Amino acid sequence: MSGSPLRVAVLGAGTVGREVVHALLDRRDELASADGASLVLSAVAVRNVERAVAAGYPASMVSDAPAHLVADPDIDVVVELMGGDEPAHTLIAAALSMGKSVVTANKHVVAHHGAELEATARRTGGVLRFEAAVGGGIPVLGPLATDLAANRVERIRGIVNGTTNFILTAMTDPASPFEFEAALAEAQRLGYAEADPSGDVEGLDAVNKLVILARLAFDAWLDPAAVATRPDGADGPAGPGITTVSLADQQDARRAGRIIRLVATASAGDDGEIQAAVLATALPLESALGRTSGVRNRIEVDAVPVGRIGFDGPGAGGAATSSAVLGDLMAIARGAGSTWGARPSATGPTGDPVTRPDRPVLIAASGIRYPIDD
Amino acid sequence: MSGSPLRVAVLGAGTVGREVVHALLDRRDELASADGASLVLSAVAVRNVERAVAAGYPASMVSDAPAHLVADPDIDVVVELMGGDEPAHTLIAAALSMGKSVVTANKHVVAHHGAELEATARRTGGVLRFEAAVGGGIPVLGPLATDLAANRVERIRGIVNGTTNFILTAMTDPASPFEFEAALAEAQRLGYAEADPSGDVEGLDAVNKLVILARLAFDAWLDPAAVATRPDGADGPAGPGITTVSLADQQDARRAGRIIRLVATASAGDDGEIQAAVLATALPLESALGRTSGVRNRIEVDAVPVGRIGFDGPGAGGAATSSAVLGDLMAIARGAGSTWGARPSATGPTGDPVTRPDRPVLIAASGIRYPIDD
Repeated sequence: MSGSPLRVAVLGAGTVGREVVHALLDRRDELASADGASLVLSAVAVRNVERAVAAGYPASMVSDAPAHLVADPDIDVVVELMGGDEPAHTLIAAALSMGKSVVTANKHVVAHHGAELEATARRTGGVLRFEAAVGGGIPVLGPLATDLAANRVERIRGIVNGTTNFILTAMTDPASPFEFEAALAEAQRLGYAEADPSGDVEGLDAVNKLVILARLAFDAWLDPAAVATRPDGADGPAGPGITTVSLADQQDARRAGRIIRLVATASAGDDGEIQAAVLATALPLESALGRTSGVRNRIEVDAVPVGRIGFDGPGAGGAATSSAVLGDLMAIARGAGSTWGARPSATGPTGDPVTRPDRPVLIAASGIRYPIDD
Repeated sequence: MSGSPLRVAVLGAGTVGREVVHALLDRRDELASADGASLVLSAVAVRNVERAVAAGYPASMVSDAPAHLVADPDIDVVVELMGGDEPAHTLIAAALSMGKSVVTANKHVVAHHGAELEATARRTGGVLRFEAAVGGGIPVLGPLATDLAANRVERIRGIVNGTTNFILTAMTDPASPFEFEAALAEAQRLGYAEADPSGDVEGLDAVNKLVILARLAFDAWLDPAAVATRPDGADGPAGPGITTVSLADQQDARRAGRIIRLVATASAGDDGEIQAAVLATALPLESALGRTSGVRNRIEVDAVPVGRIGFDGPGAGGAATSSAVLGDLMAIARGAGSTWGARPSATGPTGDPVTRPDRPVLIAASGIRYPIDD
């Protein structure tokens, strides 16, 4: 793989983009691999060119036309860090259809358009890598596709949304427990939650990550809309994600030696049927997931023959996430291919039913039935 | 990588070898990758051919001449699972010098001959993979070399020896604490400790694993003999590994909110100097390492920019370890190269001093000064 360096365009200069750009500018030699494969930053697409130049980006590199950078024959690798659905989806699809390599941290696009993007990449020989889309800097997709490739995964589950886990942790602070609204306000104050927190607190962000984990674990792209997010209430489905979790519910859980956390779970039955859910779940206080506090993430893989493997770390933040983006860039430089590695093709959403795991419940005084897990 | 399957010889049919052989025989299609790369078991070297055939190994495959298998031009990949220094070391070196690929779980050979074996592999283009040598089935070397490649590792530490961790856990069982000797006897009864437990309890097994982790983290092969294993006593160095840890010492630690566990630590200073030690260490009861109980392993990587990543799982056992061996075989089938990936060459042992991290201590009533860590 030695020879000309790969020319990289970074789309988006937000929290993660800024870290990636600085690393590519400042640590170029360090990021070159021993066999000579190297990366050179050619362009950065930003919203406001003047502001980017004022902030120190080289004027020769900045552009407000990401589609031009994608189409530019002098760009080999596109790093999509804009977030959201469009134009990110179209830009990624366009790059792959030209056979270019793409690195993205965009869990929404990968979860909602993964089957289409995978088909395009396989058709053109383009490479799509997205380690940063799940667990920030925690290596989990790579290990699933490579190191654990000889295993049959039975279940994958985890705490994959730092915002909700911060809120649920603050609510159970023994010194000064917060009510949900106050905990959310504190998360917003600290920059852990957005002004519109619905994607996090309603579980949609965790659903996206679960869909991506399931792709690596079970070789199927689930339909995000098919993943259950609502626990049962006294009279049918209650609110999604953690929106039902009151301080009183947490205290009910604590009396049972448990803590309510938002857990994403996907498992495969012997018949190939996949069960998946993102539900506020009552976990033992003393379990590894129960003790995963604040904005940390933890993902557990139960597989045969290996047993249970746990991965934990900072699940968000520009610096941590840049580790995964840069790792993916280095993987592309050494010719490692897409994140799914040598796993079989996955199509989907297949229309196959995604059912909800059947679990015993803890019935809070509020009437909400929180599934319990070990 | 499609085309002829790679022909594999497994040397050694003990706990791990048996699992690997059965997987290669029973799950051949499953272990083939989507792009057609596949593996076929051609031969198994055993101590006693008659017994192996009686146990169900195909007679056409078994041999008691591992060196012949290594030399056989019809063997592409050698899986060394004999353990110990010789003849394992010579067989691995011979295979690599012929440009063959080698997978091994042999931490002793990799730690003590790693620099030589790496040099040979780089010279001939042979491939050496050894994920199974550290942490059983826990993916940690692969993630260090690939997913975390963009990071500068500051420290790596962990509980990497299940036998000693089982003993130390049994000593602190609140229901019925064991004295050291009784805990060791229990570990032997359950098959977690060997008849001669010195390699485990004196810390040498953990030293080997630390040397291998440091290779991936810091691109240097440390001299195993240079890694400190003895805490200070009242009058100079005390016994190695966990041999000093009495029930009374554990109780002294518990009164300080701590638990003594065997922790392997390596860190790199700004000047490139590497500090490394395997010491019985007083950890907070409530920390992730403090809570790692029984035969489980946990390895933590502190790195920039990612922060702290933790990996945990079953650190030993035939089934778990076979996951890593088979994963390495599949990596070879898809052309992934050696475990060190694109990291720079490491030479050594360099003769550079390996110093011992300087830490505050907990002085037990016995006079032993156990370093404390967070």
